[in-house]
Amino acid sequence: MSVDYRPMWSQLGLDLNAHDALLSVLGKAYQDIFLAQTDRPEGMKYFDFVMSEVHGLRIKELLDAKAEGRKVIGSYCVFVPEELILAVDGVSVGLCAGAEFAFAEAEKLLPRNTCALIKSAFGFKLGKVCPYLEACDLVVGENTCDGKKKAYETLDDLIKNLYVIDLPQMKSESGKALLKAEYQKFAAKLEEMSGKTITAERLRKGIEIVNNKRKALHRLAALRNASPAPISGLDALLVNQISFYDDPLRFTNSVNALCDELETRIKAAQGVRPQQTPRILVSGCPMAVPNWKLPWIVETSSAVIVGEESCVGERGSRNLTQDGSDTRLDLLMDNLVERYFKVDCAVFTPNPDRLQHIREMFATHNAQGVIHYNLQFCQPYQIESGGVERQLEDAGIPTLVIDTDYSQEDAGQIRTRVEAFIERIQG
Amino acid sequence: MSVDYRPMWSQLGLDLNAHDALLSVLGKAYQDIFLAQTDRPEGMKYFDFVMSEVHGLRIKELLDAKAEGRKVIGSYCVFVPEELILAVDGVSVGLCAGAEFAFAEAEKLLPRNTCALIKSAFGFKLGKVCPYLEACDLVVGENTCDGKKKAYETLDDLIKNLYVIDLPQMKSESGKALLKAEYQKFAAKLEEMSGKTITAERLRKGIEIVNNKRKALHRLAALRNASPAPISGLDALLVNQISFYDDPLRFTNSVNALCDELETRIKAAQGVRPQQTPRILVSGCPMAVPNWKLPWIVETSSAVIVGEESCVGERGSRNLTQDGSDTRLDLLMDNLVERYFKVDCAVFTPNPDRLQHIREMFATHNAQGVIHYNLQFCQPYQIESGGVERQLEDAGIPTLVIDTDYSQEDAGQIRTRVEAFIERIQG
Repeated sequence: MSVDYRPMWSQLGLDLNAHDALLSVLGKAYQDIFLAQTDRPEGMKYFDFVMSEVHGLRIKELLDAKAEGRKVIGSYCVFVPEELILAVDGVSVGLCAGAEFAFAEAEKLLPRNTCALIKSAFGFKLGKVCPYLEACDLVVGENTCDGKKKAYETLDDLIKNLYVIDLPQMKSESGKALLKAEYQKFAAKLEEMSGKTITAERLRKGIEIVNNKRKALHRLAALRNASPAPISGLDALLVNQISFYDDPLRFTNSVNALCDELETRIKAAQGVRPQQTPRILVSGCPMAVPNWKLPWIVETSSAVIVGEESCVGERGSRNLTQDGSDTRLDLLMDNLVERYFKVDCAVFTPNPDRLQHIREMFATHNAQGVIHYNLQFCQPYQIESGGVERQLEDAGIPTLVIDTDYSQEDAGQIRTRVEAFIERIQG
Repeated sequence: MSVDYRPMWSQLGLDLNAHDALLSVLGKAYQDIFLAQTDRPEGMKYFDFVMSEVHGLRIKELLDAKAEGRKVIGSYCVFVPEELILAVDGVSVGLCAGAEFAFAEAEKLLPRNTCALIKSAFGFKLGKVCPYLEACDLVVGENTCDGKKKAYETLDDLIKNLYVIDLPQMKSESGKALLKAEYQKFAAKLEEMSGKTITAERLRKGIEIVNNKRKALHRLAALRNASPAPISGLDALLVNQISFYDDPLRFTNSVNALCDELETRIKAAQGVRPQQTPRILVSGCPMAVPNWKLPWIVETSSAVIVGEESCVGERGSRNLTQDGSDTRLDLLMDNLVERYFKVDCAVFTPNPDRLQHIREMFATHNAQGVIHYNLQFCQPYQIESGGVERQLEDAGIPTLVIDTDYSQEDAGQIRTRVEAFIERIQG
């Protein structure tokens, strides 16, 4: 970062020493994990820049937006509709939850057997190191799992501007009605905060922006079907991670520029790995920045990741919202509810669509094996992984289930298991 | 048991050797924990008899009811409305989930970090030792927590007659609408199974029977306000546990007979423990038969338990369903929804009523300390216990949080902590 952002961080109430330490660790990890890769697409330079300015320029942009009267809305989940936030000219940002920071403090407020993602959200708040969180006008939680649902009750004491969206647990008519009522309530909250009314025109514009972002991500995902893989799984994951933080228009353009380059690569049969490199589909829990442990292990174990069945991946971006020619706000809201109700998150029971999607992705991406990534103590995905593993194996799809957290202690053990799995799918 | 029930168990498909082993352990535990108590009320003899015939006569009664064409409906939770089951002349039974049995088998299907109650439900099925489960025409699950919600997807493969009720997570209007829709769907399912139509008259009768059962439990709870305590916590817990299994009319009469005797005891200032015995309120996760570990430790550590803020206790029995003079089925259904929507289960977020109820129970029962009982990996209550402990302590109420499972390995450690806590509240 070329500018001195310390006054800005200070103003946001960050603990500058702790924040320096975090940035230093993050910078080194980024160097070792991303920049050390060879033969990366030129188009990744934009995302490298975004990451280098993740706590700098992007935060300044948020503060500039606030100065213009726009509201910054932070969230932890793909069920929070960015379309509505854009419809009140707000800025939507995903919040930091991918690193082990101040866990000892977090564990004074939460049971030790809480998943790392939730502890991380608390740790970043308690350690005062997340400029996104501090810049938010509203922090939006949601009832996707017991861990988050109950932890928000405690987080509410720490973050005075927390708002929680309720979620259905079954794909029933009353489940859909609940989601609709919650989205209407959230829209009203955004209107009240921003002083702006959500009109059909504004919402259609928001839908268009988010659809275009998702279309770019779909394009990137489809290009990964090619063999040899034109981009590493780490880089593709990074693009998905940045989709939660970045300005959506600039992001969409940058992803499309990257895709143009990948198309050229594919025509030239140019890959980031040799043709015969084993191809892995990763499925399961989301990986927030800077949670790169598993893909780093996989891709430094002579395999390549060709898809992420994850909220930070295709589960999050899968469906577009129908915009069509609807000029009635209520119909657009219905379309929005329809789109989000299709998300095959493990909050739903039963959740057969997800298994179907894993099988489709396995086939489409020409994968050879599935690694199911579980965050320890994430009960929805951990329990679901049992049935997923059995059914994938029954269908002849080699599957490895990894339960882990954000620490590095088990990295060696995971590498051993991943290497054995790669040998299996090669054999 | 005076009758040979082995042919009956065999017919139900139980594993007779495993079942013998279970009954033998259960019988010894009952002897050591319940019958070894001194100065018990005479009225407990009925409940001792019920327990001695828990897998015998009661199962025969269920099978006799089935032979008469009545349906036996098993459930794991206080959100399954017995009123509706009675309205189709069905029999409602709580299912075994209080003992560590066949956990190694259960852990092949579920993550190890699943709570003991859920593993127990699986273990009893996989080990073929629960005659209640095998006698059921329908097993009713419900989405109270991630563990159960996702485990039912796997249990569904083992129990072909599983039906799951969805539950709201917030006390909103749409949450209530969801509960109402689910109860209507459940009522329709019961009608279809039984071939009986739920009329206003039948439902009013069901409500009356369950209200009378709850009134008897309220009466028992209120008598425990007296000092010295007229009944042990273990015996009162047992009565609450049996409320899930027993014929409701016979049960209600037996509880009222017990209460008559306790009133006489109270008038004579006759207690099961000396006047100055420290008085404990237990709060938290449910304790299903034969999960008596914590109350046994507390009551053999020179304290007495005077109330259970638990589903197997006052949380489960708290409110009556308004029956009044409603002759319209839809209004009675509304009353039922109102009653169950008040339950202050940790499935709800936020859940401030529960803290209020703990404080009320602490005062009403003249308690001196609260022990918050958590089943390890029960995220809703474990996370909630953090805030509960802080707020109770802030209000000057001594609180001890115990996290445990169904094993006996930590019994010594728990006893040490309980003894220190009792010393604290005496000091």
